Amino acid sequence: MRVEILCTGDEILTGKTVNTNYSHIARRLSDVGLDVHWGTTVGDDRATLLAAFRQAGERADAVIVNGGLGPTVDDLSQEIAAEACGVKLVLSEHWMERMTQSYARRGRVMPANNKKQAMLPEGAEFIDNPIGTACGFAVTIGKARFLFTPGVPREMRRMLDEQVIPRLLKLGGITGVTKLKRFHSFGIGESRADEMLAGIPGLAIDGEIKLGFQAHFPELETKLAARGATEAELTAKLAAIEAEVRRRLGNFVVAEDDASLERVVFEKLKAGGHTLAIGETFTSGAIASRLAPLLGADAVFRRGVIAAGVAADALRAESGTSHALVVLMQLDDGPDRPDFGATITVQIADAGGTVQRVARLVGGRDWVRIGAAELGLDCLRRHLLGLPVDERIDFERR
Amino acid sequence: MRVEILCTGDEILTGKTVNTNYSHIARRLSDVGLDVHWGTTVGDDRATLLAAFRQAGERADAVIVNGGLGPTVDDLSQEIAAEACGVKLVLSEHWMERMTQSYARRGRVMPANNKKQAMLPEGAEFIDNPIGTACGFAVTIGKARFLFTPGVPREMRRMLDEQVIPRLLKLGGITGVTKLKRFHSFGIGESRADEMLAGIPGLAIDGEIKLGFQAHFPELETKLAARGATEAELTAKLAAIEAEVRRRLGNFVVAEDDASLERVVFEKLKAGGHTLAIGETFTSGAIASRLAPLLGADAVFRRGVIAAGVAADALRAESGTSHALVVLMQLDDGPDRPDFGATITVQIADAGGTVQRVARLVGGRDWVRIGAAELGLDCLRRHLLGLPVDERIDFERR
Repeated sequence: MRVEILCTGDEILTGKTVNTNYSHIARRLSDVGLDVHWGTTVGDDRATLLAAFRQAGERADAVIVNGGLGPTVDDLSQEIAAEACGVKLVLSEHWMERMTQSYARRGRVMPANNKKQAMLPEGAEFIDNPIGTACGFAVTIGKARFLFTPGVPREMRRMLDEQVIPRLLKLGGITGVTKLKRFHSFGIGESRADEMLAGIPGLAIDGEIKLGFQAHFPELETKLAARGATEAELTAKLAAIEAEVRRRLGNFVVAEDDASLERVVFEKLKAGGHTLAIGETFTSGAIASRLAPLLGADAVFRRGVIAAGVAADALRAESGTSHALVVLMQLDDGPDRPDFGATITVQIADAGGTVQRVARLVGGRDWVRIGAAELGLDCLRRHLLGLPVDERIDFERR
Repeated sequence: MRVEILCTGDEILTGKTVNTNYSHIARRLSDVGLDVHWGTTVGDDRATLLAAFRQAGERADAVIVNGGLGPTVDDLSQEIAAEACGVKLVLSEHWMERMTQSYARRGRVMPANNKKQAMLPEGAEFIDNPIGTACGFAVTIGKARFLFTPGVPREMRRMLDEQVIPRLLKLGGITGVTKLKRFHSFGIGESRADEMLAGIPGLAIDGEIKLGFQAHFPELETKLAARGATEAELTAKLAAIEAEVRRRLGNFVVAEDDASLERVVFEKLKAGGHTLAIGETFTSGAIASRLAPLLGADAVFRRGVIAAGVAADALRAESGTSHALVVLMQLDDGPDRPDFGATITVQIADAGGTVQRVARLVGGRDWVRIGAAELGLDCLRRHLLGLPVDERIDFERR
């Protein structure tokens, strides 16, 4: 099935807003085994929108349209969809009622121009938006089914997962349920992870369980996308492979699914009734700014110090915490360049004494700073979990 | 003139990479008065690329193609361009020689597959790449001039400014030179800035000097784009308007052009021979992590403390610095929500005593954190420059 994404709006067309809606939609479709063949971006302009709808309708089987469903005059998606279908706009009493009630619940009167958002092309299939006033809809233009979604990212994301993807799978004759399992690792690159996972039966880029990677420096995300007839069948099919992937990636896995490295560290500290002080030099607060925002972190994270020199045992004594993490760096001299590097010293002090890890990272100032913050947090994770803190990572030079 | 942007590559099409090249190209074109009418994204696939080139050639006057100029087999731009033009690929002796020399200068032998990068459609116009092995070129397909650029952002950006934009301006019959003046402000929203700048002769969204805004929360960028026959004429034309914009935006301007708020604060501290200590609570290192990475900052920025409570005068005494900046926050209770807020206390201590500024910001946890870091740095800038620190900002609730 040929799927296209068509993004509308002057903010996107002119580059004022970076089009992260496009990449989100494309990634989610890929996660469930649907491939995007073409992307189009056009502005809030009648003639261009109509041409874009017609051209996509000639090329594709399905088109996800994003944007242009708002209440203002420059939101043209319903109107141009109706024109492309050769039908008129009609009021959706259902949506009008839903919007009115939603405003009433918040003690407000619905502004008159919201009525525009309940005007849909005659005969269109209604697509629910549980968290906003821009409902979606589907119509057929040319040989393609067009599914319209709002530009507000939060609304689009929810409607994509709950409403749009199930319809696309049905359109493509793809049945069953899907599941995406994610592993976040630090210290191994994509090609090494690919080697480490080679030969697991059923797991491959085009396998029954689809293997994918996405680098979010300094972490690598390993994705297993699976489809099965039922939830139970899927869980059973994934269980053994998940366990094998976890075993092979080993201590490099810092978190799974929606968890994060900082969350894992925080939960482990909290569960042990521990408290933490952090000392940073060149990372200049980068570690603290990952840990401190977590809800409830103030019970665990007591003090951060950014200074030229500080030792973990002294920081622990001074702060009265159970644990202290210190990340010190000795930077190369001179201007920034791709082979710019630093020697990083990570110290962790607790009641049992101090452990230290020294690593050399190379790759430009920003790269080294972000990598050092991750290395510090990861060493703390390893120490708290009783894992070796000095396992060699791919980004390291000796 | 109708200009389109056509981005190629599976990484972009599948959403693995967010397409920041597109937004960069579109913004730069807008800065020089060229409007983008259509954006297309396709993958590394022969049939799709050919169709995309032909369709764009029917719609546009000029098309910037980005990507597909690399040395590997999935880089197809030259080949499909030649097919669309009905010509064969021929070796550019000039580019082959340039690449060979470039490798030789670094003491290396050019890999054989780089020869592919010197194969251009017969009759194509050569477009220089001074910093990479992917040269650009231009051909005519349908009724449009196609200008091909590499996907590597650093190379694309330089070629866009030096090679592509001058050619587009010439194609569009637009003569003269262009200049972009930028003001970065904190504390005023786009609509208020628009009001503050209303009625300046010659300055408007569609004026002789083009006024534009771009919000990069928490800052607003105000852009003046001008075109003149000569550099001297342009400078003269802009001077009075620049001064008037600077006067009207007043103390809210935190930096101009390539400067940043943290850079302005740092330079002022350095010029005065001052040293700084920073205390942060909920911003958890966010201020330190903006100041500390600046080259040479270690001579000025001495110590950062992230803790529940710290007073500026005590921090200054303890750290032995000439200045101390403390940003404390009292957060609202409960979960994150759009009307989540915090009361922020900014204290600045120096030899003359302590000044304090209290503000209430509302807008969700992340918004409040980023806004508080900016507010702290901005108060320090104002204090160092002798400006009032308590001027009301738009994001503030009383």
